[in-house]
Amino acid sequence: MNEFRGIYPALITPMTRDGDFNEDAFRRLMEYNIESGAHGFWVAGGAGESVLLEDEENARIAGSAADQAAGRAKIIMHVGAVTTVRAARMAENAAEAGVDAVCAVPPFFYRPGPDEIVEHYRVVGAAADLPLFVYNLPGATGVEITLELAEKIQEHVPQLAGLKHSAPAFANTRHFARMGLSCLIGSAALLLPALTIGASGCVDGPLALSPDVWVNIWTAYHRGDIKSSEAEQKRAADLYTIFNRVGYIASMKALISEKLGIDCGDPRPPQRPLTSEERAFVIRTATALGMMGIEGQDGD
Amino acid sequence: MNEFRGIYPALITPMTRDGDFNEDAFRRLMEYNIESGAHGFWVAGGAGESVLLEDEENARIAGSAADQAAGRAKIIMHVGAVTTVRAARMAENAAEAGVDAVCAVPPFFYRPGPDEIVEHYRVVGAAADLPLFVYNLPGATGVEITLELAEKIQEHVPQLAGLKHSAPAFANTRHFARMGLSCLIGSAALLLPALTIGASGCVDGPLALSPDVWVNIWTAYHRGDIKSSEAEQKRAADLYTIFNRVGYIASMKALISEKLGIDCGDPRPPQRPLTSEERAFVIRTATALGMMGIEGQDGD
Amino acid sequence: MNEFRGIYPALITPMTRDGDFNEDAFRRLMEYNIESGAHGFWVAGGAGESVLLEDEENARIAGSAADQAAGRAKIIMHVGAVTTVRAARMAENAAEAGVDAVCAVPPFFYRPGPDEIVEHYRVVGAAADLPLFVYNLPGATGVEITLELAEKIQEHVPQLAGLKHSAPAFANTRHFARMGLSCLIGSAALLLPALTIGASGCVDGPLALSPDVWVNIWTAYHRGDIKSSEAEQKRAADLYTIFNRVGYIASMKALISEKLGIDCGDPRPPQRPLTSEERAFVIRTATALGMMGIEGQDGD
Amino acid sequence: MNEFRGIYPALITPMTRDGDFNEDAFRRLMEYNIESGAHGFWVAGGAGESVLLEDEENARIAGSAADQAAGRAKIIMHVGAVTTVRAARMAENAAEAGVDAVCAVPPFFYRPGPDEIVEHYRVVGAAADLPLFVYNLPGATGVEITLELAEKIQEHVPQLAGLKHSAPAFANTRHFARMGLSCLIGSAALLLPALTIGASGCVDGPLALSPDVWVNIWTAYHRGDIKSSEAEQKRAADLYTIFNRVGYIASMKALISEKLGIDCGDPRPPQRPLTSEERAFVIRTATALGMMGIEGQDGD
Repeated sequence: MNEFRGIYPALITPMTRDGDFNEDAFRRLMEYNIESGAHGFWVAGGAGESVLLEDEENARIAGSAADQAAGRAKIIMHVGAVTTVRAARMAENAAEAGVDAVCAVPPFFYRPGPDEIVEHYRVVGAAADLPLFVYNLPGATGVEITLELAEKIQEHVPQLAGLKHSAPAFANTRHFARMGLSCLIGSAALLLPALTIGASGCVDGPLALSPDVWVNIWTAYHRGDIKSSEAEQKRAADLYTIFNRVGYIASMKALISEKLGIDCGDPRPPQRPLTSEERAFVIRTATALGMMGIEGQDGD
Repeated sequence: MNEFRGIYPALITPMTRDGDFNEDAFRRLMEYNIESGAHGFWVAGGAGESVLLEDEENARIAGSAADQAAGRAKIIMHVGAVTTVRAARMAENAAEAGVDAVCAVPPFFYRPGPDEIVEHYRVVGAAADLPLFVYNLPGATGVEITLELAEKIQEHVPQLAGLKHSAPAFANTRHFARMGLSCLIGSAALLLPALTIGASGCVDGPLALSPDVWVNIWTAYHRGDIKSSEAEQKRAADLYTIFNRVGYIASMKALISEKLGIDCGDPRPPQRPLTSEERAFVIRTATALGMMGIEGQDGD
Repeated sequence: MNEFRGIYPALITPMTRDGDFNEDAFRRLMEYNIESGAHGFWVAGGAGESVLLEDEENARIAGSAADQAAGRAKIIMHVGAVTTVRAARMAENAAEAGVDAVCAVPPFFYRPGPDEIVEHYRVVGAAADLPLFVYNLPGATGVEITLELAEKIQEHVPQLAGLKHSAPAFANTRHFARMGLSCLIGSAALLLPALTIGASGCVDGPLALSPDVWVNIWTAYHRGDIKSSEAEQKRAADLYTIFNRVGYIASMKALISEKLGIDCGDPRPPQRPLTSEERAFVIRTATALGMMGIEGQDGD
Repeated sequence: MNEFRGIYPALITPMTRDGDFNEDAFRRLMEYNIESGAHGFWVAGGAGESVLLEDEENARIAGSAADQAAGRAKIIMHVGAVTTVRAARMAENAAEAGVDAVCAVPPFFYRPGPDEIVEHYRVVGAAADLPLFVYNLPGATGVEITLELAEKIQEHVPQLAGLKHSAPAFANTRHFARMGLSCLIGSAALLLPALTIGASGCVDGPLALSPDVWVNIWTAYHRGDIKSSEAEQKRAADLYTIFNRVGYIASMKALISEKLGIDCGDPRPPQRPLTSEERAFVIRTATALGMMGIEGQDGD
C-alpha cells in the first residue's frame, strides 16, 4: 500500500565553480546511490539547499532527477516556498518533469496559522496531483507539524502520503504511522529505533555518502537480525555526529566530492565552505568509519 | 549626527486585483504619510510582504519610493533574502534607485552562525554602500540580534547605522543606543517608553494608517509634555492590539484602503484576506480610536 | 558491570485520606511490582510527588522501600531539592535506610550555572556514597542535562552511575551509553527504541500499573524476538497516551487503586483529583488494553 | 485607590556565617531603605532566596519585616511554595505577623494547568485575606502569567491586587494596568519606561542598594522632569548590567555588606559566594556609579 518505504538519501545539490547547478555531478551521485540500493531520493530539500535555489533551478533539478532515476528509485521533489503561488508552480513543474511525489516545508518566515498552512498544502497538493509529503522541520521553519495539524492536513489534502519527521517529538513517529502516513524519520542516527515504532524509512543527507550502511540497517531489521542492525546503526550515528561540529551541507559536499571523485562545489553563501582543516577532519572521520571506500560497501 | 530619527511607517505593499505591485496606491499612501509628518519609511519590510516579493518587484518598489519621497522623507529599503547574492543584488539596485539606506533581516531558514551572518551583512553593506540597518525580528527569522552579535557586525560592517528592534529584549534598546546605533523600536505600542531609554524612533506598520498619532507622541515627548505623549501612546496601543486578533497585513491593507479610498488589495497567499466580519471589526475599532478620518488627525 | 538495568517503575506515593504517606498501600504496590518482575524502583521521583513531599516523609519512604524490597529489587531513591544542604541530608538518610542508589533532579527554580550544578551533585553524591543517578527532566526543572554537562558531572562526581533521560533529545541516549552511564529512558512509550541505541532500561510511572508489559518488551528484545517486543511496546504506548489528556499522577493513583483494590488517595494540591468521568475514562482505557486484570498479565 | 505604588526594594535575606537568618542585618537594611525613601518592600522573594528558605524562616522574616516597618513602609511578603497547603500556611502566618500584602509565584516544578493555578491562588488569597500579588517570573517557574491567566485569577480571587511583572512581554504592563492591577515592573532598568505605560512602581533587588536612585526616577517623573528621570534611569541601568556577569544574589549581598558595614553572608548553596575578584569588580562598578556612599544619595 505504502510505496514510499526504505532508504531515501536527501541529496545535496552539486554546484559548479560558478555556483550553478552541476547536473553531471548530480546524476553521478544519484547513480552511485541507486547502485548502492537506495529506494528513493529526497531532492532539493534541506540538504539540497532547497530555498536557496531559484525556482527555475528547482524545475531543472526535478527533470534531471526523474530522468536519471528512470523508475529505478522514487523521486520525492521538494517544492516548498514562502508563497503558495511559487510552491504550487514548482509542484506543477515537478509533476510535469515526472517525479513520483512532491514534498514541501510549511510556509515560513511569516508563520501563518493552521488554516492557512492547510490551504497552502491543499493548493500545492492539487497543483502536482501526486503523493504529497509534509516536511516537519521546525528548526528551520519555526512551525511544528503536530499531530493535530497533521490530522487537519490529512482531512483537507487528498494527496497527503506522509512526512519527513525532523522534529524533536520522536515518539510522534508512532502516531503518524497510526494515521496511515508514511513517516520517514529525518535523522540518520535514528532509523532503527524509528522502525521499531512504525517509521517507513529514513530521509537524511548523510545517507547519500554511504547508502549501503542504512540499507544494511534496513535489511537486517527486516530479516530479524537486530544485532547486526544495531551495529550498523551505531556506525551510522558515528558519522552523523561530525556534522554538528562543522557545516552540514559543506561537509556533505566535501565528503561526496572526495569519495566519488567529482567536484560538488560549495554551499551558497551565506553558508561558507569548509576550511582545509575542517575538510581533512571530516574525511578522516568518515574514512575511519569505513564510509569512504566504494569497494567495502557491500558487506555488513 | 544620526540622521535616521523619528516616525518611520513600515509601509504595506499595495497590490492590484491580479496580485501585482500597485504603484499608484503605493505613491498615494506615501504622500499621505509625508503630509502627515512621517520622517521616513521602512519599505518592503515585514509589513510590506518583504520576502514574499520577487527581487524585480523589490527593485521597482525601491525606485517608486525614492522618486515619490524626493528628499522629503528618508527611504530605508528592505533587501533581505535567503542568499547573500540575492540580498546584495537587491541592495545594489536599491542604491541605484536612490534610496537613503538599506535594511535586511539576517539570513533565515538555514540559520547560519554569527560569522556567516556578519559576512552576509558585510557583503550587503558594501553592495549598497549606504547606511545599513539590521532587522532584529527573531519571531520570523529564528535569529536574535543579541548585543554580542550587534557588536560583531559593527566591528566588520562600516555601513552599519542602526537596527529595527522587534525582539522581546526591550531593555536592549538602551545598549544598542549606547553603541551609537540608531535603534528604531519595532513596536507601535512602545515608542514613548523606548524614547526614555534611548531609542531614535519607531518603525512599525500601524504608523502608516495614522502617522499623526505617532508624530504627536514624538513631538510631545521632545517638548517635555510627557502627559500628552502618554495619552497619544495609549491611543496608539489601543490600535495595535487589534492586529493580534486578525491578520496583521490583511488588516493594514483593509484599513488603509478604507481610509484613503484606494484599493490596496490582499496579502499574498498563504496569508488570507479578511472576512467581511473581520473587516468590519478592524474598521470599527480604528474608527472608535479616531484614526479613520483624514481631518481629525492634526490635533493632540 | 552495570547493575541498574531493566524495568524500573517510578512509583506513585500513595496517600491516606488525610494526605499522609500510606505505607501499607506503598508496600502492597511494591510487592505487586516485584512479583510481576520489576527489576527495581524509582522512588519519590516525578511520579511520586518528589518535591511536594516533606523531607521527613522522604526519609520514611526510603526506609519502607528498602525494607520491602529486601534485596529482591533495586531501590533508586530520589533526594532532589532546591538547596544542596537539603538534598545532601536526604541522600544521607536514604543511604542509612539501605537504598541501593540515589537520584536527584538538578537544582531548580534559581537555575544555577554548570559549575554550581556539578558541585551540588558532588556534595549529594558524597553524602550518600552510593551510585548516583541524575534526573534529566528539563520540562520541570528548566535545566537540560546536555552531553557537555553530563561529562562535567562525570568528571567530578565519582558516584555517578547513570541518569533518567526524560528530555526531548532522544538520540543522546546513545551518547550517554557511550560514556558508560546507565541511561534509563524516561518514557514508557520508548523502551524498545531506546534499547536499540544503548539504553539500560526504563523508568516511568505507567510501568507500575502493569510491569509485565514492559518486562515482556525487555525479555522479548533480549531473546531477539523483535516482533513480540514491538507488539508489547505498541500496547504500552497506547496506555501512555491517556496520561496526556488527564492528570498524570491522579490517573496513576486512580488506576492503581482500582486494580490492586487499595486506596492510594489523590495527588497533593495544587494538583487536583480526577473527576468521576475522568476516572471512568482512564479505567476504561486501561481495561481495553488488558492492563487492569492481575491474571492476564503473564502472556505476551 | 491603589495603595501599593512606588519604589519597592526586593530585599535580600541576610544570613549569619552559619547560614541562619540574620535578623539584625535585615532590620538595618530595611531601616536604611526606609530612610532613603522606599515606599515598601518585597520580602523573601526572588532576591531574598524565597523557596530556599524553610517555612519557619519565612514566618520569622515576616514578623521582623512587619515589626521593623511599623507602618512606615508597606510589606509585601512572599509565600510561594510547591504545594497549596504550604503556601497557604505561610500566607496565614504572614497575615498574623502583620504584613500588608502577600505575594506568591505560581506553583512550579509540576507546572499545573490554569485552573489549578487559579485554585492555588484562591486558597492562598483566602488564607491571608490580604491584598495578593502574583509573581510573574517565568524564567524561574516555567509558567507565564499571560493576560488571559491574569483575567482568570482576577475573576476567582477577590484579594488580587496586582503583580510583579518579570516576564519578557514588557508591553503587557499597560494591559495589566488597564485591568486595574498594580503592575510593579520587575526590572530596575525599566522603571521609567514602565511608568509611561501604566506601571505602579518597581520591585527589584538592586533598589535595596541605593533606593534613592529609583526614588529620584520616581519623583522626577511625577513632577514632569523627564530629563532628570531619564538620567537617573540610565545610572540605574548601569548598575543593573553588572548582575548578569556575576551571581545576582551573591553580588547584592556583597554590595550591601560593604556599603552598610554589615555582614549579610553568602547565598545558600548551590549558589556560590563571589570570588574576591568578583567582589572587587562589583564594588568598583557600584562605586563608579556613585551608589556606595551613604552621603551622596540625596541629590539628583
